[in-house]
Parts: sequence; C-alpha cells; structure tokens
Amino acid sequence: MNEKRTSKGPLLLIGGGADDVDVRYACGFGAPDPFLYVEKGGERHVVVSMLELGRAQACGKGLQAHTPDRLGLKGTKGRGLGDQAVALLQHLKVKRILVSGRCPVGVVRHLEKAGLTVQIKKDPVFQGRLVKSAEEIKALRASQRATAAAMKAARGMIADTRAGSDGVLLTPDGNPLSSERVRQRIEQVLMEADCRADETIVAGGDQGVDPHERGFGPLYEGELIVLDIFPCSKVSGYWGDMTRTVLKGTPRPEQRHLVQTVLTAQRAALSRVKPGVSGKEIHEGICEQFLEAGYETGLVDGIPQGFIHSTGHGVGLEIHEAPSVGPNGGELEVGQVITIEPGLYYRGVGGVRIEDTVVVTESGCSLLARCGKEWIL
Amino acid sequence: MNEKRTSKGPLLLIGGGADDVDVRYACGFGAPDPFLYVEKGGERHVVVSMLELGRAQACGKGLQAHTPDRLGLKGTKGRGLGDQAVALLQHLKVKRILVSGRCPVGVVRHLEKAGLTVQIKKDPVFQGRLVKSAEEIKALRASQRATAAAMKAARGMIADTRAGSDGVLLTPDGNPLSSERVRQRIEQVLMEADCRADETIVAGGDQGVDPHERGFGPLYEGELIVLDIFPCSKVSGYWGDMTRTVLKGTPRPEQRHLVQTVLTAQRAALSRVKPGVSGKEIHEGICEQFLEAGYETGLVDGIPQGFIHSTGHGVGLEIHEAPSVGPNGGELEVGQVITIEPGLYYRGVGGVRIEDTVVVTESGCSLLARCGKEWIL
Repeated sequence: MNEKRTSKGPLLLIGGGADDVDVRYACGFGAPDPFLYVEKGGERHVVVSMLELGRAQACGKGLQAHTPDRLGLKGTKGRGLGDQAVALLQHLKVKRILVSGRCPVGVVRHLEKAGLTVQIKKDPVFQGRLVKSAEEIKALRASQRATAAAMKAARGMIADTRAGSDGVLLTPDGNPLSSERVRQRIEQVLMEADCRADETIVAGGDQGVDPHERGFGPLYEGELIVLDIFPCSKVSGYWGDMTRTVLKGTPRPEQRHLVQTVLTAQRAALSRVKPGVSGKEIHEGICEQFLEAGYETGLVDGIPQGFIHSTGHGVGLEIHEAPSVGPNGGELEVGQVITIEPGLYYRGVGGVRIEDTVVVTESGCSLLARCGKEWIL
Repeated sequence: MNEKRTSKGPLLLIGGGADDVDVRYACGFGAPDPFLYVEKGGERHVVVSMLELGRAQACGKGLQAHTPDRLGLKGTKGRGLGDQAVALLQHLKVKRILVSGRCPVGVVRHLEKAGLTVQIKKDPVFQGRLVKSAEEIKALRASQRATAAAMKAARGMIADTRAGSDGVLLTPDGNPLSSERVRQRIEQVLMEADCRADETIVAGGDQGVDPHERGFGPLYEGELIVLDIFPCSKVSGYWGDMTRTVLKGTPRPEQRHLVQTVLTAQRAALSRVKPGVSGKEIHEGICEQFLEAGYETGLVDGIPQGFIHSTGHGVGLEIHEAPSVGPNGGELEVGQVITIEPGLYYRGVGGVRIEDTVVVTESGCSLLARCGKEWIL
C-alpha cells in the first residue's frame, strides 16, 4: 500500500457494496450484489453477471459492461471481486489503481498480490457530489415533499386524540395511540410516494431525550413528542429529512421555553445560511444562543443532555453526507443541500428538535419543502 | 499486510458498516453509523459516540463500551474509525489484529501506519452463523410467516380481477391492476408485521424473464406473473424469502408445461434436502430434470434464458448468505436454513420461479412457513 494519497489516474469502486452511492452517482447504475466499476480516462467499465448485463448496457451513460465469463474467468474463480478486478485491470492494461478508503481490504490484497499498485483516493471520491445539480435538487425536493406530507399526517393523527384518565392519548375509536401506530401511518404515506423509511423516530417524553431512540409504547398528553422522518426515494435514491416536535394538551412553562428557544435558534440559523458562511459559524451561533438562554450541555447522571449533536449535515444520495454544519464545518457553497436541526434534550422535560432541509442559494437558502411549525396540538 | 490467513487472535470488525451483520450476530448491538467492535480473549469491546453509550451498555451481552473521548481522542481526531481503532488496540495492548476481508482499506492503512500487524480472517468470520439456533429459527419462521401472509394478499388481489377488453386486469373498482399496486399491498402487509421489503418483485410476462426486474405497469390476463417477496424483520433482523408464479385466466399449453416442470423440480429438490447431501447435488439434479423435460439454458438473442441462476442460498441476518445451493454448494447440515427456488425463463412464454425457505432437519427439511402453490387464479 503506497502511503501518498492522490486523485489522478484510473479509479476502481465497488458498486452495490462499499461504494454503492458513488457508483450510482457516477453512472446511474446499481445492482443488488457488489460489482466492479472502473474509470479510466473517459471510459467507464463495469463487471456484472449475465443477469445484469442488459440493464447495465441500457443505463444510457455509455457504460462498457463486462461479465466474468468474457474476462476469461470460469467457475469459482469468477465469483470473487478480487479476481474480477485483476482480470479487468489487466484487460485495460492498468498497473496503478486508485480506490476509495472504503474499498474492502480483501480486494486490495488481491490486486497487490497480482502486482498492481493500489493507492487510496482523497475524500470525497467525487467532489461534484457536494454541490447538487438542478436535476438532483428536483429529486431532493420530491423526497422532502413526501416527508412533509408524512409529517402532516402524523401531526394530524396526534391532534385527533383526546387524553384518557391515565393521560394516554386515545384515538377517535378509543384505542391508545402509540409510537408504533404513528410510525406505521408515516411509513404508509411514504410508501405511497414510493419512498422507504426504516428508522422513523416517534419518541415521546424522556424517550425523546435520546436522539437515536425510535420510540415505543403509548403516547401521553402533555409530553413533548419528537417526530423525525427521513425517507429515501426508491425511484431517485435521494433522501428527505425533517423533524418537528409536538405536544398534545397544555405545555408546562419549561417545555414552552425549551421549544421556543429551539424555534428561535433554528430560525436564526436558517437566516444565517448563505454562500461563504461556514458550517462552524452557524453551529457556534446556535451554541451561544442556547447558552445565553440558560441551557447548558454536558453529562448529567451519565446521560448527555443539552445540545448534544451537530446543527446539520449534507443530504443527497446519503442521508448523512458532506458538508457538515458542526464544529468542523467549512464554507457553504451555492447548490449545497443541508439540514438545520438544532435540538435541546433534558430528562424530565423532554427532547426538542426542529429540522428543515434547505438548498444554499446566491442570497441565502430555500426550503426544499414547507411544513408548519405549530407544536401545541 | 501479512499474506497468511489465520483465525486465531484478537478480531476487529466494523459495526453499522462493512461488518454490520456479523457484529449484530456477535453482540446484538447495532447503530446507524459505523463503529468499532473488538474481540480479545473472552472480552468484547465497542467504541461508540456518547449518544450510543447507554444503549451499548444496556444490550445485555457484557459489552465493554468506550467513547472516543475516554480513549483520549478529542475533536476531529476522534471522528475517524482509524484513529479510534489505533487508540482502542493500544489501550488493549494488542499488536496483531484480525479483520474481515470487508474491512475498509482506509482503516487497515491507519492500523499499519501505527505499527500494528493486520491479517485477514478466513471466511466466514463466525462459522456459527451457518447453523441456526432455535432462537434464530423462531425469528426466521416469524419473517417467513409474514412473507406468506403478504403472498396470499397479493394472490388474492390478482384473483379478484377481471380482464378488460384489452386484456388488462381490472380490480373490482374498475381500475387497472399494476405491478406497483400489488407491490404496495405486499409492502403494507409486511409493514404491519414490522418488516421492510424494498425490492419486492411483481413482474408479468417478459418482465418476469429477467429475474432482477422488479416489474412495472399494468398486469395482463394470460401472462405468468412472478411474485418474489423477501422482507427483513425490523425487530429481529432476520429475513424471509418466498416466490410464487401465478396467472389470471387460462394458460397456454407452453405456460402450463413450464410451470408444471418447475413445480415438479422444486418438489423433487425439497425431497432431496437432508444432512450430508450437497447443494451441488441438489442443483445438478434440477439441471438434469430441466434438460430431460426439454428446457435448455443459454444465451438467446443475447439474453440469458432457461435455468439461469442457482437453486438456492442460505437465509439469516442476510438475505443471501452461506451455504450455497448451486454449482459449488457443499454438504448440508442440520439447522441450516436455505431456499429452494428453481426457475425457467423464456421470452414469449414468461418466467417461472417457485421458492420456499426450509430448515434442514435430521431426516430432511421443514418449511419455515406454508403457502399453497395454486397458480391459475
């Protein structure tokens, strides 16, 4: 393994596996099992099974599609990506190859044993992924519109309840409303828009204090409920991402203050987004606002509380991608798509997170989809 | 990179990433972003963010959970898996470490730069995954029962149509029935069972000749429709897998013969499954039966036709895992869970695939869930 990272020369990626998203970005082609993708000069090559050959040739991006068989690999030998990579690179007369840092070490070892020089390409593999094209923004808007529709359905479901004697929210048919039922409704709306969402968060009360808790069990009157919806379009592969925090009934003063602080911080952060401003500045602005409002961050009883995550992240073919809107975030550029999602989390009060996804424009930023922020239902 | 593969010594895997399934198998813990897992002697360690710490400690398998912070990593340096791996292994006084062949080369490079010796562990990383425990079989049965319920719903939906003047199947409300509508119904049934299924196949006519085509557009009377359903339980992580081929109306003689040949072959293969019989024998038995029935396999007009895939594969925490029931399949063992899914595909006639998932028993095999094979609806 050569130590120096470089960016020039033939590149090998693993589609349908470690580099799936980059390969989809580069050539629009994906498959259910790992396959090889190689760029050399202006040429793009894939090695796929006979079953995928027609689809690869038809994908319309001038891909040259090979099969293990046509590369002279028969039987067991043709089944490994390492053998296929060696055969393809020998066929293309490539002696030095770039891979991503995610490339499986087993494949690299195969290449090195065959005498090839392997170098890791600097991140990101495709710089172009950081700034979205008009077509990509259209796809992101569609995913975010589906997200907003699901959010409205969830909010409507919670609004349309009354509290039972034990405080549990009851639906009009008299059954308790649970995180699971709200999540099912969200996923149904998303499914109808041909999106998938596997980790939707519907977390009430102290469950919402852990930002990674999906939520479970009955929902209660007077508790903050975090709704975080992030689906991927099965058609385009682009993600949406939106969070709202709601409460059915009458909030306690500390809940009201918490929500209003996050709402104000999110609005201020959205107004600061523009080209040339760094993710770091935006993040630090929120940290300061929270401190000024009296909200500290740190471990309480061994549990992280306060503002315990970054302000946001890029969204595209991955739900979390560059650029970061956090302590290490660089300068924003026109066409970047990011989330702005400040949050505050305290045991006994609850969690509040409010998130929109925006595209950076010449003069500021624009929401990918609208969804109101009324929170007392 | 040391050339020799070995299986003894401390092991490093990437949970939530390249080795996610193996880590879930080993310790029951998963997370949305990549994290380190290390086994050393009887100890098991993970490095997770503060947000995941409580969940890791609570997972009940005696995991020792570390954070980058507690390993002395601050700021940007703690964000990379490579730095975290070096810090943890130094903390554990490990100098030689095994990784899987899937380990990202970027992480390996980091370890080697820090002076560690890295070796690739022989596949499979956990031999135990090949034979399922009683608890695993219970989870697989639950996923397969959900699959069967979805299959019955799909079949009912197709049965409950009549053909319009152009042959398009019409639902009772007079609307055309499409692959998309059937797929939505399938996914809805699965969602209610807390399963996700992203690539369900509902492919009619010549679409069904390509085994990887999901299917689209209206469904027609008199065409073979391949229904292939393979959901993953969101609760257990175990998959189901079942395929049926149906037809609404009256089949043509060549369709009838094709289906009956596959049905007979699948039944014969199921009866041959038992410990000590190899996947290769079962696969070759089907190849012979198809040839005897007059069905050849090969490229016709550049399109693979005939019996163009393996007979089956293992099912567990991955939808495709060892053992193989194909040209290289080894001897089966009690407790292995495999699919038996012969198929024949010819342009102009259609595709037929019939698949069940079974567990190998002392005396043969047992279906994980039952679902009838009536195909003329």
